Formats: sequence, structure tokens, C-alpha cells
Amino acid sequence: MFPNLLSSLALIACGIVLSIQLIAAQTNEPANDWKSAPSNQGGKEYPQVNSEGRVKFRIVAPKAESVGVSFRDSSPFTKGADGAWIGYTRPLDEGFHYYTLNIDGAEVPDPNSLFFYGAGRWGSAVEIPARDRDFYALKNVPHGQLREIWYFSESSNTNRHAFVYTPPEYDKSRKRYPALYLQHGAGEDETGWGQQGHAGWILDNLLAEEKTRPFIIVMEFGGNPFAGGPRPTNSPPAATSGTGTNNAAAPGRPRFNFNFSAFEHVLVDDLIPYIDANFRTIADQPHRAMAGLSMGGMQTRTITLAHLDKFSHIGVFSGGSIGLTNITDMPAFKKKAKLVFVSYGSKENGAAAAKANVQALKEAGINSVYYESPDTAHEWQSWRRSLHEFAPLLFRN
Amino acid sequence: MFPNLLSSLALIACGIVLSIQLIAAQTNEPANDWKSAPSNQGGKEYPQVNSEGRVKFRIVAPKAESVGVSFRDSSPFTKGADGAWIGYTRPLDEGFHYYTLNIDGAEVPDPNSLFFYGAGRWGSAVEIPARDRDFYALKNVPHGQLREIWYFSESSNTNRHAFVYTPPEYDKSRKRYPALYLQHGAGEDETGWGQQGHAGWILDNLLAEEKTRPFIIVMEFGGNPFAGGPRPTNSPPAATSGTGTNNAAAPGRPRFNFNFSAFEHVLVDDLIPYIDANFRTIADQPHRAMAGLSMGGMQTRTITLAHLDKFSHIGVFSGGSIGLTNITDMPAFKKKAKLVFVSYGSKENGAAAAKANVQALKEAGINSVYYESPDTAHEWQSWRRSLHEFAPLLFRN
Repeated sequence: MFPNLLSSLALIACGIVLSIQLIAAQTNEPANDWKSAPSNQGGKEYPQVNSEGRVKFRIVAPKAESVGVSFRDSSPFTKGADGAWIGYTRPLDEGFHYYTLNIDGAEVPDPNSLFFYGAGRWGSAVEIPARDRDFYALKNVPHGQLREIWYFSESSNTNRHAFVYTPPEYDKSRKRYPALYLQHGAGEDETGWGQQGHAGWILDNLLAEEKTRPFIIVMEFGGNPFAGGPRPTNSPPAATSGTGTNNAAAPGRPRFNFNFSAFEHVLVDDLIPYIDANFRTIADQPHRAMAGLSMGGMQTRTITLAHLDKFSHIGVFSGGSIGLTNITDMPAFKKKAKLVFVSYGSKENGAAAAKANVQALKEAGINSVYYESPDTAHEWQSWRRSLHEFAPLLFRN
Repeated sequence: MFPNLLSSLALIACGIVLSIQLIAAQTNEPANDWKSAPSNQGGKEYPQVNSEGRVKFRIVAPKAESVGVSFRDSSPFTKGADGAWIGYTRPLDEGFHYYTLNIDGAEVPDPNSLFFYGAGRWGSAVEIPARDRDFYALKNVPHGQLREIWYFSESSNTNRHAFVYTPPEYDKSRKRYPALYLQHGAGEDETGWGQQGHAGWILDNLLAEEKTRPFIIVMEFGGNPFAGGPRPTNSPPAATSGTGTNNAAAPGRPRFNFNFSAFEHVLVDDLIPYIDANFRTIADQPHRAMAGLSMGGMQTRTITLAHLDKFSHIGVFSGGSIGLTNITDMPAFKKKAKLVFVSYGSKENGAAAAKANVQALKEAGINSVYYESPDTAHEWQSWRRSLHEFAPLLFRN
């Protein structure tokens, strides 16, 4: 009886909290300056975003009993006489957010939004226009190309899929270029940096302002850490599908497989040789960088530390950092690592520890840079900004 | 009273027809050899396809009252104890079909399928594996690149988006190549040929078998003919949004705007010069082709006939044909048009008339070829096959 009483009390408490939240949501009427989101499908009026960063949805579902969205603390959706349900979110951070609709228990994409690969699926996302969006805007400047390539990987015996950004001058020049290998996060794939990351426009704009040296960017599928879960579309079986250490996870939550050795082989044994043979790279360690976000940052740390003969510039975005204890041979590291760049969103856990590690590397004489994205969490706005800060520091020495 | 009686009789007749169809569907149990469709998102078990070409859907929607799919004559969806709805289609033609789910009146994409741009939106589609799918399969052969490009169009004052396929040898050679300008259909966009059309793999495979000459393919957005309707994603405003002749259409049906002059300007004044300046093309009339499917075929006819100084090879897939009456100056046409290729799916209206027109052109001394895709309608399997037949005939003379 006693545990049941406790449960009941807890439920009542939850009810009170929920009621307070609902009252707050209802009394704080959203600002009425809604504009269609830039992440909408062409011609679609909804979702809309207002100056508070709230998102308003309109979903035609005349026979539905309930409609909702995966953003926590959203207003209850209400149905109008036209059969369309309207609901809106709390104010969201600037930038890009994945979401899913729920229509009578069915988790479905919003037919109004563009679709992106993330959170382990192709689905909806919404863009809250950020104050600094100019640096990744499409402008009338010379544009590089985002090239979809297929190549055969001996180490995994599969046809593999990647994207390569080549700078605007690439086809007209006969020069060779440095290369950055740039990785996505867990539940994302090789499309992430080119689509929601806007890596191409970030580089095009930096180059137009002469703020970076031209280099190529290679974006491959780094594997799916959701053991037994879905793998990305149009992609070969996950590179990490071999044996590995599964992180402990609560029942019902995804289990992560953060063994990167299969991807390490693909990258080092297949992809880099393919890129060096098929693109005009400067195929040496001083002109090769690796960076990644979240899981891609962890991969970057693991793989660059194991292959300092291959990589000179290292970028870890929201994916931990490199501490003194990670470096087994400091004189060798000092000689080979020309840059260690670490970044976090200011709202993320881990920012303080990463900053301290960067400071320790600096004191040890390593060219190390810490960047913190203001007012963002573990999301793409942090990583767009990180690439924008990282690129100008590359291949300077 | 009398019209009402007629209506009632008609409704009863419809009911009888519907009942017969339902009985037929119920008594003809589908073959139980379901396999996950190749168009599914990675790791998704459903939709499944059986040997009859039926598609079986499984949609988790525990609180829904009704679930359906846009394929006509599908079985009624039924809900299992697990909250998942199961339903299946009639046998469909081989190849690629767009569809939409309906959950309690909401038209939404299937969260299990990959998403494609067609029918005026990004949404679901399913692939029924075709007997001849080998010609557009991903193989371990040298692959060309599908390059996403952005360029500024003076004639439309917009940043425009296109895709360019370059053959496998392109980057390693210093040769120049012919170019094919290849257009999508109405309600589709510049992504169609590269994604659902598999244009790249078709060319890669033909080249590996030495069945075609290498050439580049340029795929641009040819405009959205749905006047006032949606326009494709990531694209500039529709090139055809200017004044034009709206085809008469029944109320409630989309009105088409088939004035191609804005796109004609973009293509001739902006895109071709950009491609010739930025890719290693053989920039002359004998080495430039244009083709398209459906609306893209109509554009091809209109634009090539108006610009025979620019195009020598013409392909019209499921988009009408070129009749003797379309040609105002036969000696000039004979001199300049090196190939007129016309194709249809065997299930399409228009096939017979097109075949007769091709025969008339042949008799007038024009190198004209008719191709009919067996057992397909106005869909991508007809157009994949058409490209596969058309490519080997290009730039031979």
C-alpha cells in the first residue's frame, strides 16, 4: 500500500506541475509575428516561427482525436472547424531542430517540412533563423561543388557512399589542395554536413571573404552506434556493425556501440587512398585534417591519436576533448599536431572540462583553441559555428 | 426527384462494383513471399513487396480510427493487437511509385520509406523490383560523380540549383565531353533523375560495358506548372511563374501552366553558358543534347525546335513527339537534328500516335527512333529504360 500511496502522491505532484506549465503556456500568448520556416518544403506556409523562437504547426487531420509534436512543453494542439490542428512550441534555441509529429499515436514526419537524416531516421526538422545566419547563407558568390561519390571499400567489401566538397576554383585550377575529413554525429549520416550543416555555403562564404585557405572536405558515413537499430539510407551496412563494447543503457533506450575500428579501417585503408588517388589533394600529413561532431568528435580523437602520421589538424565539436592523459608521447604529439580545436555549445555539459583541457594543452605548448557557441546546446547551430571558426585555422603552417 | 433517383442508382452500382472488388481482394490472398522494399529507410522492415508486385504496409497508429494509402484498390487496413495497422495494395507495375498515407484524415509520408521529390512534394515512394533492374543497379564499376552546383542566373535574378553528372574518367582526363540537358516531369524537380531516375548508375553501367560514349548530364529545375501551387524545395521561385496559358482544368484539379519561356531563358542564356564555362564540354551544337520526361519532354520539343543551332540530339520520353507539322523548315531540321528519340510506356495513351510520328520522321529522312517500355505506364520505370536506350545513340555522328 505504502509504495502505491507514494506513486499516487508523485502522480498528483506531476499533475500539479503539468497544470502549472499549461497555465503558463496559456497565459503567455506567443508573439503574433509568425513567418514560414526556411526549412519548409517549397510553397508550404507552415510550420511558422515567431520572434521568440516558437514554432507553430498546422496539420490537417480532420478525423484525428489528438495531434502533437515531439518538442517538450509544446502547447496542446487544438482542432479548428476546417479540420486543421494548430499547436506551438516553447521558445527554442536558434538553429536547427529535428522533430516528429504524433497523429493518434502514429509517429510520422510533418508533410510540410523538408526531410533530413538525423536521430536515426529521415524525418522533419525546423530551422529557427539565427541572428548570425549570414555566415551560412546562400549568396551570389563563387560556389564550390558538393559531389556525391561511390567507391568500393576492400576493408568492408561494400560499395560506399560519400560526399566531397570541392572549392570554387578547383575545376579551373591545376593546384592540389589540403583535405578535411569531417564526420557527423550518432544517428546521422554522410548527408548531415552538406545539408543541415551547410558546410559548402560556410566554405564558399569564408573563401569569398578570403578568410580561409581553399581545401576539400570529405564526408563519409561513420557508422551507426545504435546496436541492432536502423542504419542510414542508401548506405552500406554500418561500418561499426562488428564486435564492440556496448555502452550500458537503460532498458528501452538505445544501446550505443562506440567501437570505431571498422570505420577506422575504412577511413585509413580505403577512403583516404581513394580520395588521394581521385582528387587533387596534397597527400601528406601536414595537409590532412579530421574533425567531427559529437560521436564524430570521439572518432576524430580516437583515429587521429592512433594515426598522427596521417593527420595534423584535429577538430572535436561537442564530442569531448583531448586531455594530457590521452597523449602518450608528448614530444611526438607536439611535433605532429599542428592544431587541436575543441568546441561546445554554451548550454552543453562538458564545456567547462573541455575548456580546461584546451588550456592544459596550450600550457604544454600545443596550438590548441577552444570555442564556445553562445546560447546553443548539442545541436547543429553549435556545429555550423564550430566549422566556421575551425576552417580559418586550418593548414596555416 | 429524377436526378436524385439516378444518383441513388449510380451509388448502388458503385457499391456493387466496390463490393465485387472487395470480394476479389479478399478471396485472392496475396502471395506470402514478402520482402522489404529497396526504397525503405535503412533498417526498416516495411513496406514489403511480394512476387505479385503488391506492397504491404505496417503503420503503428494505436489510437487511429482509420489508416489508408493512396494506391487505389488497396485492401482495407486492419489494426492488430499491437496497435499496428496492416494493409496491402493491388499488384503494381514494376518500378517506382509515389504514395501517401492517410491517418485519420491526415495525409502524411510513411515514416518507413525514403523520401523523393515528386507529385509536387517531398514524400514517400516504393520500388517494386523490376526484372530488368540490373541496368540501374549499384555495381562495383567505376562511378561518375553527381555534383550539386549553385550558380547565379541573370535572366531570373536568382541563385539556381542544378546537378551535373560527370563520367568516371572526367577528373583524370583532360578531354572535353558532350553534354545532355535532362529534364524532370511536372511536379518533380532537379533531384528526380539523380535519385529515383538512377541516371548516374545507368550511365556508369553503360560505360562499364562500353555501350555508350562518356558525356556529362545536366539536370536543372524546369519550373512548376501547378499555377499558384507549391514549388520544389531549396529551389528558386518557379521559372514558369510568369504569364502563361493556363490549361483548362476541372474545378478542384490542379491547373497547369505550360509556358516554358522563363525556363527557356534560364537554360539558353544562363545554364548552358555556365556549364560550358565551368565544365570541360565540347561547346557546340553537334555535342549538345536535350531530353526530358513528360513535361520535360514537352520542354525539350519546344526549346530544341526553337534552338536548333544549340541542340543536335533530342529525346522526348512520355511527353508527346515531334510530328512533321512541328517542323517548319525540313531541310534545316534534317541538317541539324542528328537524332529524334521518342519513347512511351506501353500502358500510356499517346504511344501509338508517337510511334506513327517517328515513322513519318524516318520516312522524311530523319534519324528517328521509337522505344516502348514494356508493361509500364507514366512512371519512372519507363523513363529509366528510356535513358538506357537513348544514351547509346547519343553523339555517334
